[in-house]
Amino acid sequence: MIRVGVVGGTGYTGVELLRLLLPHPEVEVALVSSRAEAGQRIDEIFPNLRGHTDLCFSLPDTNTLRQLDAVFFATPHGVAMEMAPALLAAGTRVIDLSADFRLSDPSVYQHWYGLAHQCPELLSKAAYGLPELFGPEIARSSLIANPGCYPTAVTLGLAPLLMAGWADSEGLIADCKSGASGAGRSARISLLLTESGDNVAAYGVSGHRHRPEIEETLGRLAGQPIQLQFTPHLMPMIRGIHATLYARLRSPRSNEELQSLFQECYGPEPFVDLLPFGSHPSTRSVRGANICRLAIHQPRPGQVLVLAVIDNLVKGAAGQAIQNLNHSFGLPITAGLEQIALLP
Amino acid sequence: MIRVGVVGGTGYTGVELLRLLLPHPEVEVALVSSRAEAGQRIDEIFPNLRGHTDLCFSLPDTNTLRQLDAVFFATPHGVAMEMAPALLAAGTRVIDLSADFRLSDPSVYQHWYGLAHQCPELLSKAAYGLPELFGPEIARSSLIANPGCYPTAVTLGLAPLLMAGWADSEGLIADCKSGASGAGRSARISLLLTESGDNVAAYGVSGHRHRPEIEETLGRLAGQPIQLQFTPHLMPMIRGIHATLYARLRSPRSNEELQSLFQECYGPEPFVDLLPFGSHPSTRSVRGANICRLAIHQPRPGQVLVLAVIDNLVKGAAGQAIQNLNHSFGLPITAGLEQIALLP
Amino acid sequence: MIRVGVVGGTGYTGVELLRLLLPHPEVEVALVSSRAEAGQRIDEIFPNLRGHTDLCFSLPDTNTLRQLDAVFFATPHGVAMEMAPALLAAGTRVIDLSADFRLSDPSVYQHWYGLAHQCPELLSKAAYGLPELFGPEIARSSLIANPGCYPTAVTLGLAPLLMAGWADSEGLIADCKSGASGAGRSARISLLLTESGDNVAAYGVSGHRHRPEIEETLGRLAGQPIQLQFTPHLMPMIRGIHATLYARLRSPRSNEELQSLFQECYGPEPFVDLLPFGSHPSTRSVRGANICRLAIHQPRPGQVLVLAVIDNLVKGAAGQAIQNLNHSFGLPITAGLEQIALLP
Amino acid sequence: MIRVGVVGGTGYTGVELLRLLLPHPEVEVALVSSRAEAGQRIDEIFPNLRGHTDLCFSLPDTNTLRQLDAVFFATPHGVAMEMAPALLAAGTRVIDLSADFRLSDPSVYQHWYGLAHQCPELLSKAAYGLPELFGPEIARSSLIANPGCYPTAVTLGLAPLLMAGWADSEGLIADCKSGASGAGRSARISLLLTESGDNVAAYGVSGHRHRPEIEETLGRLAGQPIQLQFTPHLMPMIRGIHATLYARLRSPRSNEELQSLFQECYGPEPFVDLLPFGSHPSTRSVRGANICRLAIHQPRPGQVLVLAVIDNLVKGAAGQAIQNLNHSFGLPITAGLEQIALLP
Repeated sequence: MIRVGVVGGTGYTGVELLRLLLPHPEVEVALVSSRAEAGQRIDEIFPNLRGHTDLCFSLPDTNTLRQLDAVFFATPHGVAMEMAPALLAAGTRVIDLSADFRLSDPSVYQHWYGLAHQCPELLSKAAYGLPELFGPEIARSSLIANPGCYPTAVTLGLAPLLMAGWADSEGLIADCKSGASGAGRSARISLLLTESGDNVAAYGVSGHRHRPEIEETLGRLAGQPIQLQFTPHLMPMIRGIHATLYARLRSPRSNEELQSLFQECYGPEPFVDLLPFGSHPSTRSVRGANICRLAIHQPRPGQVLVLAVIDNLVKGAAGQAIQNLNHSFGLPITAGLEQIALLP
Repeated sequence: MIRVGVVGGTGYTGVELLRLLLPHPEVEVALVSSRAEAGQRIDEIFPNLRGHTDLCFSLPDTNTLRQLDAVFFATPHGVAMEMAPALLAAGTRVIDLSADFRLSDPSVYQHWYGLAHQCPELLSKAAYGLPELFGPEIARSSLIANPGCYPTAVTLGLAPLLMAGWADSEGLIADCKSGASGAGRSARISLLLTESGDNVAAYGVSGHRHRPEIEETLGRLAGQPIQLQFTPHLMPMIRGIHATLYARLRSPRSNEELQSLFQECYGPEPFVDLLPFGSHPSTRSVRGANICRLAIHQPRPGQVLVLAVIDNLVKGAAGQAIQNLNHSFGLPITAGLEQIALLP
Repeated sequence: MIRVGVVGGTGYTGVELLRLLLPHPEVEVALVSSRAEAGQRIDEIFPNLRGHTDLCFSLPDTNTLRQLDAVFFATPHGVAMEMAPALLAAGTRVIDLSADFRLSDPSVYQHWYGLAHQCPELLSKAAYGLPELFGPEIARSSLIANPGCYPTAVTLGLAPLLMAGWADSEGLIADCKSGASGAGRSARISLLLTESGDNVAAYGVSGHRHRPEIEETLGRLAGQPIQLQFTPHLMPMIRGIHATLYARLRSPRSNEELQSLFQECYGPEPFVDLLPFGSHPSTRSVRGANICRLAIHQPRPGQVLVLAVIDNLVKGAAGQAIQNLNHSFGLPITAGLEQIALLP
Repeated sequence: MIRVGVVGGTGYTGVELLRLLLPHPEVEVALVSSRAEAGQRIDEIFPNLRGHTDLCFSLPDTNTLRQLDAVFFATPHGVAMEMAPALLAAGTRVIDLSADFRLSDPSVYQHWYGLAHQCPELLSKAAYGLPELFGPEIARSSLIANPGCYPTAVTLGLAPLLMAGWADSEGLIADCKSGASGAGRSARISLLLTESGDNVAAYGVSGHRHRPEIEETLGRLAGQPIQLQFTPHLMPMIRGIHATLYARLRSPRSNEELQSLFQECYGPEPFVDLLPFGSHPSTRSVRGANICRLAIHQPRPGQVLVLAVIDNLVKGAAGQAIQNLNHSFGLPITAGLEQIALLP
């Protein structure tokens, strides 16, 4: 059994990690920390866990954590970079669900997150935790930067086109729709049911933290800088991201060629599901499941749309983190991740 | 024109008062106060009001307020009782949407609201602002305690049975379902879309502030103490209260007798709509409108159910407050209150 | 492996059976039938199942079905009673999720469901599939009538009080709130998002098919006829039932006595979770999980409320059916049913 | 008083027309027709209208209709073109909320709507009912084609850029999100709360009827053909359209220039509200109100986004139809259309 800890267990990625880790056949959850709730039973805050764990939240303590095999950080930005060096030094692997190790350039991190990076020397050692695209790096590294929810959907949807050099590297558009759980479990008026229910609005149109993350990753895959307009919208739903992706082809490609390109890229992957050409995936078809469903359209020659859906808390966060854990420790990649989506 | 002010304009009852008062043909909104937002344009916080007002929030100031004809308090409990005496002394009428003047006994107020009452001598002078039942008192008083949202639905639904002495005064049950706007515009985790969306739960089952209010009002109407079990539930919707009311008859009554009793009680009232016997009113049939729709059932002889629906922000708060204003100033009772509910 | 079939796989109980049966460690799903969709891949209708099954819908055929160990009927009322006799004669066990075998009196069945019963002689042989209360009968019978969703929540909530003789057998009230999936996957205007979204309404207040079912079961447990007012409401949510149950005590009982009574009744049961006295369970704490969470209140001496929540499609239908399968075949009762509820 | 009729009053545009027309100070609703519901009281189907009308649905009859001043068609496609010629010949003005007169080319109509046009000679006489852009034509014509809901939002959002020749006529993208009421009041499984609640999906990505309508209108305004990718999505909400519009500038323009362009175009219009540059309008800010709110962004030089929100049933259908009526009859343009949006 792999003994793991979760630092910062009171948010939605925390409870989702526990929903998936507690029944994981190869994992033992040794501790879950929370400064604010230390001493309280976890299932008092998250009643869905009643009967599945007797753990209480503990204080985060580096000495205890570094005795574990792996630690997940489900914390606000800035915490993981404080604690990771000591854990890594002790041989504990770190899977960070925050943004601390996602961007390779510390000045970009500081620009978007408002914090000076505490261990910039680790940035080049961190693997970007999108196993379908960066599997070898993840296998080699003991520090995994779990991607953001939007970047997961956008990157999986556009990567094949850019890796093949088929799409223009400019003029890419990601018009994304997210459920409210993407904004976390924080008491903000704008996230009240009365404010975000029965309502749709865009936000961060002129700039959002996930844009540089996507541009860096896709640029690496493309072998050249890419330019993306990223437009997030808040939807009146709880879970789910729908990414509507627009790209222009450099030269004509048939629908069959496009479908084959994606088929070859993701064919054997258990967690990327390519729908028949011209399909319309729905977010509810992935609710609660660690999967990205993709469909391709070419409404006019040269104009390609990719529709990508994920559950932002699973393939967009906790599920992908566990996929990274499985990958890192050589477990079957689907261990603990075979949940079927909840429909309806 | 009647010049009015709104104290505490940043909550949902505040914005709803403005939605209804700004187009009111006999009213001029002279000021809207907010300590927190003083100086800011109202329509920056509530964009639905863009184009309908250029007012900014002002600081609440008794000297200014007492030059108005009437002042609405859309404040948390405790504010109105501080400011009302000075306004009343200056001849300004006060319509309080908080609970400060709803209960006649200051010790009951202190028990449920945790505050010592600041002007208990005014309690006996306040009229309970349910115009269908207390019209003469409202006409005589310059201090009107606007009822709570639940009490409006429950009292209108049970009053005819109790006034006629047909229902047992014990064993009454009000199983109530409310949209989230009833909890106000406050940043609480339990009110997030992610927490209260796609979810139903009861709260305050063992005791809720609206129970003593209902029991006092219904007891006055019944001429004897009554005993009510009040069970509120939070629904995954924005507006609306559905009160499912259970009473036992003291002696047999036919369905026609029951229907006639309610018909006689509310027949001419423009804001209480009695549906055909055995109907099932829906909250959306009153969304945005100042109306209570009622329907009666008698599934087994002697067991009566009354189903009552209101929009908690209109007939349950702001609309009723304006109905009280109209009544108090001798305006047509429907002035400014003829909105048709939004369906779908 | 137990080989099972699902007759009528295109409704919500059908897809939910498949979500739970496909990963069940002791079960093989041999066939899923649908007259309307025969020949079509199941995962084309239910995309959440993509990657989990390659089955197509087949025509329901008794000759094929009776070669299976067990058959689930997820059909409209009237189908199971046509096919069950042949299957039972062949030794195939039948678990019927429709109402065909829930009521012992065929005339009551005919009154509420409008069909003459086709095999009334089987009614006395059917076990009522609420394993927490009727385990021995279920173990003995090869015909199991899976309870309705509302009856599951109401019966589990009231049974301890009635079995102990503590509650009055009259004056019981079940005020129930259900998500829209309880009404099935049928194209009706009243179930559109535009009609039932952001809306609450009661229905069937004067009589609903689940009332006689509940009254029969509770009457058996009480040892005398009981009388219940059952009031269902449609909520703007997808899954979940919240039953708010009202009973009067025959003689005074302390809160501790009440809690102990339920604790003794359900203590060892893995799928009934008794919360601390005075709690407020939420439907989302059971979404997707085969569990009923209960909490008891006594707001005034002698007046007891039990709050019961289930997922209507799991513990209220498909999950319970599998629990019955496990019980019937002597499998571990939790086999295939250990999903943790999805929160948020 | 202008005497009007509504043909096809049982859909959502029908009930919305009645919500707005019944209190309209210059209009008398003389009849509302429905083949299916003839003889039934309107308020039995739409209980929000109780107390506001005693009308019953009548059979649609040309002889009666042509005695009216104006007739609204809130019918499925194909009805208005059958009845319009007789009405126009009698001097009755026709405002058609269906698509029958929106496209100038009957072969395009036939391609997208599957019907041969019955009166192609009238197409050139119909005015496109977007009063902010085609006011003079509307004033001259007695046949007004009320725009589709999506085309209203998209056209108002892109028109200024195209009329000024600032935007490329190719590469335009309209990524649109609509509430479910846009699909009408029809019993389809895909529109159930259980299917479209808590879910987001695109539809018609490779081709939707509103694309040729938008392209024709914008092409006329641009003075040259334009090419648009139109991507509609269904949102889990009842009302509202959010159009996220992408255009590329032909030459650099400052943010101030962009804002001024729109300001000059729509400045005096009461029903187009330009927000400060860089704002994020929300659909709930227009719920129930006849207004389009717009905001402009330029995240990177040359890439312009316009965010446009409307209530699809008001500015996107019934409200705009009444605006056309007002315009056509020389009434104050805001008559009957001054409702403030319902928030929350």
